[in-house]
Amino acid sequence: MQNSPPHVEALFFDIFGTTVDWRTSVIRELKEFGRAKGLRKDWEAFADKWRAKYQPAMEEVRSGRRPFTILDVLHRESLIQVLAEFKVARFRESDLDHLTAIWHRLDPWPDTVRGLHRLKHRYIVSPLSNGNIALLTRLSKRAGLPWDAILCAETAHAYKPQPQAYLRNAAHLALKPDACMLVAAHNSDLAAARALGFRTAFVARPTEHGPEQKGDLGAEQAWDVIAASFEELADKLHCP
Amino acid sequence: MQNSPPHVEALFFDIFGTTVDWRTSVIRELKEFGRAKGLRKDWEAFADKWRAKYQPAMEEVRSGRRPFTILDVLHRESLIQVLAEFKVARFRESDLDHLTAIWHRLDPWPDTVRGLHRLKHRYIVSPLSNGNIALLTRLSKRAGLPWDAILCAETAHAYKPQPQAYLRNAAHLALKPDACMLVAAHNSDLAAARALGFRTAFVARPTEHGPEQKGDLGAEQAWDVIAASFEELADKLHCP
Repeated sequence: MQNSPPHVEALFFDIFGTTVDWRTSVIRELKEFGRAKGLRKDWEAFADKWRAKYQPAMEEVRSGRRPFTILDVLHRESLIQVLAEFKVARFRESDLDHLTAIWHRLDPWPDTVRGLHRLKHRYIVSPLSNGNIALLTRLSKRAGLPWDAILCAETAHAYKPQPQAYLRNAAHLALKPDACMLVAAHNSDLAAARALGFRTAFVARPTEHGPEQKGDLGAEQAWDVIAASFEELADKLHCP
Repeated sequence: MQNSPPHVEALFFDIFGTTVDWRTSVIRELKEFGRAKGLRKDWEAFADKWRAKYQPAMEEVRSGRRPFTILDVLHRESLIQVLAEFKVARFRESDLDHLTAIWHRLDPWPDTVRGLHRLKHRYIVSPLSNGNIALLTRLSKRAGLPWDAILCAETAHAYKPQPQAYLRNAAHLALKPDACMLVAAHNSDLAAARALGFRTAFVARPTEHGPEQKGDLGAEQAWDVIAASFEELADKLHCP
């Protein structure tokens, strides 16, 4: 970090894309499902279509047209739409449960777990994700992510990038925004946090959206820290 | 899932008394404060008086006379009352901050950390405490408690033994009550949880209230598990 840094007490992490490689994990599980069911589909396109419904689903909540609804429910609703779009007609409730819970079984990036363990020595570490508590708790337990707390849209009753998603979770830790740093691979997430007084760390994840990724290939502002991995973030924050 | 036999997936832990030895820790810190300030008081009586205001303060919230208010705020208000009762007149805001945060620095019982690590191998482990998120996160980080989530009155907006304190936290993990077990040293807490369908584990803490403790010396119902420590609980739940 630059010269005398303000004292950061908590590091908040974006999860989907920043901490875990959602796309590779979702495609892998969809292909397994297809093999088990004897279904031949373009599962990469299916995964991208499913994810494309993520922001519009949250926007229903952010706009106030719909009361706060956890991401597991939004994921299930959009799954049903994508199954219809891909003309998958024969599925059971248990298939919907299994597929929705793919988002509970996402693999971390290779540097994630070691980096978090190092960062945890000096900071409170917590998600600040649009995921819900059950999703993040199971994902983190499976992946070995050593959080100090599970904070997210569900604990704030607001989806990022709405200000309350950041501010209420800082308040849950009794912290002012400038004692918090958001770690994210998305410039827009960091911009929303910085506007509220959070410190910011950009960690590049240039293959989050696959080999053809166009956006978020690099830092678009002078974020407080810019790193290529959680390990490099730990180096730059002087964590042993 | 519906047709499967009941299977416990999460262990919820009471914190004050069950997981940490609040009384010894509070008395030790009050005595340090007294030495630093040159104040001679009966700090054991002070600690017990402070704790005696805990249930009445929460009752204001449970009764609906007061909106939900986190425990750090209740602790601070009751501290001010006890300071007056013990005729401690000279203190600063920073003293109130320091003393209120004693509840963030409580020591675990000797078997707590090793037992939790063993139980975590097989179960989701989380507090289910009347403490708030900031308190529990800092207490747990300092003590090395390896939780998978931080659930509590603040995440439920209800204080135990009100049903919503148990039910909303089970729902935050997407679990039915019979997939949850409450671990507590207090028969009344277990009775409230059992009435809602939770499984129950009693861990005796016969010195929580000091050498003269009268209540909760043993199990008062046939709880699902009865143990003398978190290590024995791990043995009885067949955790390696």
